[in-house]
Amino acid sequence: MTILVVGSVAFDTIETPAERREQILGGAANYFSLAASFFSPVQLVAVVGDDFPQEHLDLLQGRGVDLTGLQRVPGKTFHWSGRYGENCNERETLATDLNVYADFRPTLPLAYRAARYVFLANIHPELQLEVLDQVEAPTFVAADTMNLWIDTSLDTLKKVLGRVDALLLNEGEARQIGGTCNLLEAGRAIAAMGPKTVVIKLGEYGAIILQGEARRFVPAFPLSEVVDPTGAGDTFGGGFLGYIARAGSTAPESLHRAAAVGSVLGSFVCQDFGIDRLKSLTEAEIEARFDALTRYAGYDPAPLFA
Amino acid sequence: MTILVVGSVAFDTIETPAERREQILGGAANYFSLAASFFSPVQLVAVVGDDFPQEHLDLLQGRGVDLTGLQRVPGKTFHWSGRYGENCNERETLATDLNVYADFRPTLPLAYRAARYVFLANIHPELQLEVLDQVEAPTFVAADTMNLWIDTSLDTLKKVLGRVDALLLNEGEARQIGGTCNLLEAGRAIAAMGPKTVVIKLGEYGAIILQGEARRFVPAFPLSEVVDPTGAGDTFGGGFLGYIARAGSTAPESLHRAAAVGSVLGSFVCQDFGIDRLKSLTEAEIEARFDALTRYAGYDPAPLFA
Repeated sequence: MTILVVGSVAFDTIETPAERREQILGGAANYFSLAASFFSPVQLVAVVGDDFPQEHLDLLQGRGVDLTGLQRVPGKTFHWSGRYGENCNERETLATDLNVYADFRPTLPLAYRAARYVFLANIHPELQLEVLDQVEAPTFVAADTMNLWIDTSLDTLKKVLGRVDALLLNEGEARQIGGTCNLLEAGRAIAAMGPKTVVIKLGEYGAIILQGEARRFVPAFPLSEVVDPTGAGDTFGGGFLGYIARAGSTAPESLHRAAAVGSVLGSFVCQDFGIDRLKSLTEAEIEARFDALTRYAGYDPAPLFA
Repeated sequence: MTILVVGSVAFDTIETPAERREQILGGAANYFSLAASFFSPVQLVAVVGDDFPQEHLDLLQGRGVDLTGLQRVPGKTFHWSGRYGENCNERETLATDLNVYADFRPTLPLAYRAARYVFLANIHPELQLEVLDQVEAPTFVAADTMNLWIDTSLDTLKKVLGRVDALLLNEGEARQIGGTCNLLEAGRAIAAMGPKTVVIKLGEYGAIILQGEARRFVPAFPLSEVVDPTGAGDTFGGGFLGYIARAGSTAPESLHRAAAVGSVLGSFVCQDFGIDRLKSLTEAEIEARFDALTRYAGYDPAPLFA
């Protein structure tokens, strides 16, 4: 089943202790689309400037991403720049140049409006609402957000929450929206605002999936080297929703597998700069790492005191 | 199989945002012993002052803990005092009064020297070595440590590492000893110093168990309220080693189950002050939570792309 995603396609400039890369392909919707494309066709809604090279479009189309909804307008593409310190992937944002995103209004091509699976990547909640207004009868809508919108547009964000099935967010954001340190309680508070499913991403530790009283955990796949963690959360989201759309199920067990797929995809993307590792990634590699993650996470459930 | 444990038995004064408790039963070896006692008999080596009440000794003996090796000397019992802030269990140590531990030399009763399973709780590495000198032919020795000994007595600590099978430590300590942010690499560096098994405790996230190239993850059991996290790491250790001694196996799958048991015990202890929750804990409750943790952690390993 096809997934509709709305969010940023961007240029990233990334500095790690080892290396610096300028103006590489980035953006939440881009990471999401490439990851999801291993499981489901993707329809992308985004905007780029006239400086955006054809090769990036070819890459997305080559992975089966429908670009009918990608606007190309005069001006510069959204640019984000960040630096990772020596101190355990601590990240500093150096620049966020919205450029063509400053005036972006998402417009869904007619063919997109029947979308059953929808991902609202991290854009202004007002725009997330505009997308929801254009989708006819979605089966499962998931959204991401960030501290900026929680700080500046909480009321609008709450309107989004009232209309989505799932919220994906990191633990700091979950504590901020939920108003408590305790992640279960934060998840419960968020669920009360609308989304029946809350996925709390814990970065290098993994993710917690909350769905009513069902709770599941998926660890991050352990890597002996993280080259560049940029986009890992969005890639997780792409694997997660991609698997859900393919499986056609949102039962707790399916969401758990979906989060494991997200964890696997997110781990691959950390092993090279930007989206580079996704370019060569194969189904066989995904399957092998999923198996390894199963062994990593799953212990013998036989009784203890028998 | 009996476990020998050497470490602190103490009085703790604990302040949480909700409540303050003075001079309650604490200490790493105490938490460890009570947790391990659900799975194996325990022999305890520690020291208390003449202010230590009989009821605490009765509690330990009631759980099958052998106190032949517990010295009772004139003076005051070791006292630790700490405060948890509103900010997500951030802990501040207010006082560490060594008292009778200042002159403590561990002396093993003859009957303890044949111990097969040994846990060296977090005491000075010099004392950990003295214990090892008195044990005849242990099967599996695990040790804990802390940043204080890493900072002040690294050479002695390395001698300990050269003589133990497993090291249990938290992620900050792992990064400090291993000299790298990356936990897999830190674990590898620590293993190269001696212990074939390295257990990195991640607090509210869980624990990573490394044993050569075998890697396993156990999540922390999610709680909707943490009353007092004091001793959770030592309780984890007690469940971990208690299960290993009972199972008589240190294969990767056994260590994984053992860590899950540690996670279960560690979660219980957080649900009340000090060791209070362990007093009423039953095998049936442990078994039920172990089952719940299995569901929380284990997803369907069937192929993704079949």
